[in-house]
Amino acid sequence: MRLKEIGEFGLIKRFQNKIKTDRSVFRGSGDDCAVLNLSKSCYQLFTCDMIIEGVDFIKSDNLEAVGRKALGVSISDIAACGGIPRHAVVSLGLPKNMLVSQVDLLAKGLFGLAKKYKINIVGGDISASGKLVIDVSMLGQVQKNKLCLRRGAKYGDIIMVTGSFGGSIKGKHLNFTPRLNESRFLVDNFKINSMIDVSDGLIQDLGHILEQSSAGAVLYESLIPLSKEAAGIEEALCSGEEFELLFTVSRDQASKIIKSSKYSFKVIGEIMPASFGLRLINQNNKYSAQKGGTWQSFKPRCQKAGFKHF
Amino acid sequence: MRLKEIGEFGLIKRFQNKIKTDRSVFRGSGDDCAVLNLSKSCYQLFTCDMIIEGVDFIKSDNLEAVGRKALGVSISDIAACGGIPRHAVVSLGLPKNMLVSQVDLLAKGLFGLAKKYKINIVGGDISASGKLVIDVSMLGQVQKNKLCLRRGAKYGDIIMVTGSFGGSIKGKHLNFTPRLNESRFLVDNFKINSMIDVSDGLIQDLGHILEQSSAGAVLYESLIPLSKEAAGIEEALCSGEEFELLFTVSRDQASKIIKSSKYSFKVIGEIMPASFGLRLINQNNKYSAQKGGTWQSFKPRCQKAGFKHF
Repeated sequence: MRLKEIGEFGLIKRFQNKIKTDRSVFRGSGDDCAVLNLSKSCYQLFTCDMIIEGVDFIKSDNLEAVGRKALGVSISDIAACGGIPRHAVVSLGLPKNMLVSQVDLLAKGLFGLAKKYKINIVGGDISASGKLVIDVSMLGQVQKNKLCLRRGAKYGDIIMVTGSFGGSIKGKHLNFTPRLNESRFLVDNFKINSMIDVSDGLIQDLGHILEQSSAGAVLYESLIPLSKEAAGIEEALCSGEEFELLFTVSRDQASKIIKSSKYSFKVIGEIMPASFGLRLINQNNKYSAQKGGTWQSFKPRCQKAGFKHF
Repeated sequence: MRLKEIGEFGLIKRFQNKIKTDRSVFRGSGDDCAVLNLSKSCYQLFTCDMIIEGVDFIKSDNLEAVGRKALGVSISDIAACGGIPRHAVVSLGLPKNMLVSQVDLLAKGLFGLAKKYKINIVGGDISASGKLVIDVSMLGQVQKNKLCLRRGAKYGDIIMVTGSFGGSIKGKHLNFTPRLNESRFLVDNFKINSMIDVSDGLIQDLGHILEQSSAGAVLYESLIPLSKEAAGIEEALCSGEEFELLFTVSRDQASKIIKSSKYSFKVIGEIMPASFGLRLINQNNKYSAQKGGTWQSFKPRCQKAGFKHF
């Protein structure tokens, strides 16, 4: 069997079945970050992300933006868990004929973003490579009562997002702002039941929340904020690497968040019982997907969008 | 200027000059691991290592061994700091046409070694890649009074090693045992002044200790333990990826370590004042290198050996 038959998520499940962890681990593989016991009041967050030339960026992309992206995706993971990024190590696989000035550009993006968010770059590894590869591993901290996971969504929760969706591949995937400030504002002031960052696509990442919360959902297509670059609603629902926050809160908390108006948070739907499945209500107020459908039913619709790895 | 002109270490220095860290960092880039403040009695160790097909292993290598190596190099870094490995995340860049059974082999090596050393694999990232790339980031812990760095070597210290040297590329680099047990034994029972693992080559890694300790050294070629695979003393001095421990201790501690005889630790030389430089005494009891020479003087001799990246 080849990788493309089992797919990225099939492979992850295959690994997860082999993993046993001890009591130092509050939450292992399966969320935006691993969550480790640190002290009475805090957890440590631990995440890694690898970006590769030809897959996550192309050779002609601005290397300063590539450096920012390499660090930004991990910051986005820490933000999705409600945490504060603190330390990172960086592994670089560099083509032999690369110019030192090009590596400087990459470093400028990476160190610049680290400085902005007060993240300590504390080490790394350098290797030769055919294609440029950058792996960032990041540590963060989160107060125990502020930790957000994928698994806390409750029937009746309002589903909300930051930013707008669609067409990330046209530029946003390299020039996004990780939603750290928004995440801080949310966890400092409200009770967030579940949260994830949109890296695989809105539908797919909502699917991760639903699966881990044993819940269903209804989404209103007319409420999805479309970016200027979005080709349409379909593409906005499937577009990967948007790096926006997707979260669920009680109806009461949602109205307080909307009134706070410090950042632009939008309501896009509601959490339903698991038996309801995931259903979209289209612009004509009709269900655009089968009753009882799961997020996996949407896979064929999203096949052409986003950054599919296999 | 191209990377091969500045070299791996030139590039690392270039980065280090740009890095500022806050008080949460006891020791940043420049040692086997980053050392972070964790609690009153403990530091947290943080390290990453990337291995790439065609550089650190070849396509026909046994993938179970490749998986072991990916984790083993980081365990070796934690051991070199006197610590205990605890948690790891793994990023995989996988060729699209790879078979699931091949990934299973890789995972078998990786998870098997993790189980042996009770390391929790707590997360990861999977991406498509032209060549197989594996990056492991690892966290460890060390009691503050047991931390070993490169910088503590003192004039008069005895230089010691585990294992034997030379010809790692013929197989050991894929089938080494990280010296975690030896490291535990050393830091639990003795005062280790400086320690490093031999990944770049005996001379070069001793050079790192000398540079950071502002010290010189004399090595006795007749005392270097040669492995069966070693082509000769020259090759043993330069061979990279041996993953043995190289450490320095006072004369008193050295004699106690030798008498303890729990593991095979060998004396190979002595720490001298910085002005002495690094000098080798050959089998005829004569200096085989210029007085006042630094480890960098040995670079041309080592050009052909080891795993040079650029």
